[in-house]
Amino acid sequence: MDLQGDDLTAAVVASFGDSPSDRYREVMSALVRHLHAFAREVDLTEDEYFTAIDFLTRTGQISTGTRQEFVLLADVLGLSMLTVGLGNRTPPGATQSTVFGPFFVEGSPEVQLGGDISNGAPGQPCLVSGRVLNTKGEPIPQALVETWQADEDGFYDVQKELDGPQNRAHLTTDADGNYRFWAVRPVAYPIPDDGPVGELLRAGGRGPMRPAHIHFMVTAPGYSRLITHVFAAGDEYLDTDAVFGVKHSLIADFAEHPAGTEAPDGSTPEQPYYTVDYDLVLATTEEAQQ
Amino acid sequence: MDLQGDDLTAAVVASFGDSPSDRYREVMSALVRHLHAFAREVDLTEDEYFTAIDFLTRTGQISTGTRQEFVLLADVLGLSMLTVGLGNRTPPGATQSTVFGPFFVEGSPEVQLGGDISNGAPGQPCLVSGRVLNTKGEPIPQALVETWQADEDGFYDVQKELDGPQNRAHLTTDADGNYRFWAVRPVAYPIPDDGPVGELLRAGGRGPMRPAHIHFMVTAPGYSRLITHVFAAGDEYLDTDAVFGVKHSLIADFAEHPAGTEAPDGSTPEQPYYTVDYDLVLATTEEAQQ
Repeated sequence: MDLQGDDLTAAVVASFGDSPSDRYREVMSALVRHLHAFAREVDLTEDEYFTAIDFLTRTGQISTGTRQEFVLLADVLGLSMLTVGLGNRTPPGATQSTVFGPFFVEGSPEVQLGGDISNGAPGQPCLVSGRVLNTKGEPIPQALVETWQADEDGFYDVQKELDGPQNRAHLTTDADGNYRFWAVRPVAYPIPDDGPVGELLRAGGRGPMRPAHIHFMVTAPGYSRLITHVFAAGDEYLDTDAVFGVKHSLIADFAEHPAGTEAPDGSTPEQPYYTVDYDLVLATTEEAQQ
Repeated sequence: MDLQGDDLTAAVVASFGDSPSDRYREVMSALVRHLHAFAREVDLTEDEYFTAIDFLTRTGQISTGTRQEFVLLADVLGLSMLTVGLGNRTPPGATQSTVFGPFFVEGSPEVQLGGDISNGAPGQPCLVSGRVLNTKGEPIPQALVETWQADEDGFYDVQKELDGPQNRAHLTTDADGNYRFWAVRPVAYPIPDDGPVGELLRAGGRGPMRPAHIHFMVTAPGYSRLITHVFAAGDEYLDTDAVFGVKHSLIADFAEHPAGTEAPDGSTPEQPYYTVDYDLVLATTEEAQQ
């Protein structure tokens, strides 16, 4: 009774002492200590406490199967990139990870190698290709490649009123580890700022822009799952990504080609188009644990 | 680019540097630093990150106008009591504060002095009375007293399918500062554990019980708003309140009386009943700021 200050913190930590999980006790103890240290450091007021309760409640309530506002919140607070850094002991030669982001959707359509996933989305055609390899440079056949990205207007399909997916699909690599599909050239875009996270950014005097990128999630038996982006070289927001996700090694050239020239897949587009080629290198499960 | 470790934390803190509000910069800087320190201390895994995202999302989504799961979460993590302690410089003689809790509802019915607010809720009748005073012991007339509490089954009205409120009302004090109403005798009860917070408690090996109490929120012009409980003396959970909210000074005797005896309000109940008398002492706005 009459708990306050350090005694209160100690009592809350102790309340988790009967957890059957050592890890749960460890995490909750740290969470309570750091949460209390934060509140004490800023001398948190009751008005601010209720503002935070309301903010977190609305962050949960605006989230849906196609919009994850808490992921977005973790992104703009740098927690997502911090976790990516803690969790991924990327071995030399393997592709680095970056944030998952709020726009992944389960159950994307399958596309055949070389197919078009833009499905009418606005934007200049872009042939995206590369190989999925292991750290020895050997191809990984039958790897599952999931991809998603925004269109020329800066919107993901799930942000629009659509009947079907756009610029979102999965495919499996061929015997040589190749992946290849047509989408649109990605552009820089603002993260959704019509919700609680947008309020947080505006109150902080922060911009919402992310540099142009394509999302990849790659899985294959025996390998550590890779969640990453390929960023467009030359984008003006590479140094000021709203979610702190850019890594030099993930930047690739998106080359422009005039209409009527032959693309690497043998087609001859009747309009100007782009190509980007980027190999995705997976660490084995063993390598990732070292 | 390639931000990680301390550089990442510094970049996120710096991103709030253009906020027009000194206080916002201060709070967000501390929030980011403590959040990152927590993640680093426990070496947060990506699985745990996604578990937390899911937990927070569901905590928001289960909340409604009559159930505030984020308040409940802050309660069981001790953040509510910590904030109460930071925010309230209770001067000597003023009633101490405790947690607001998740069950307050705007727009409770008005009750006349001495009226019955139980509205058919199960439980033994209990006459709740006292005076609203200032720290000089002078009555505060026309103070607004809002009250809410659970019934004999341990449920607040909003946890049940009901047409109207039970054990929830507001009234104004008379010229002598008196408040008085009939409700039911409160009992110890478990906080709602059918949601995310219940999962957290079970994973932590923690119990959900709170000692019997009546909620009060008292406001009067010129005085600091008081949010508190009156706890029942002798309750077996006074030392193990799931939300760490008990203070010695808030414990009062709930006296039992046999049927057919005259109650302090002049009535003669035909069944056994309880009485509790507790004065609620408000600090002036000036006193609370010192």
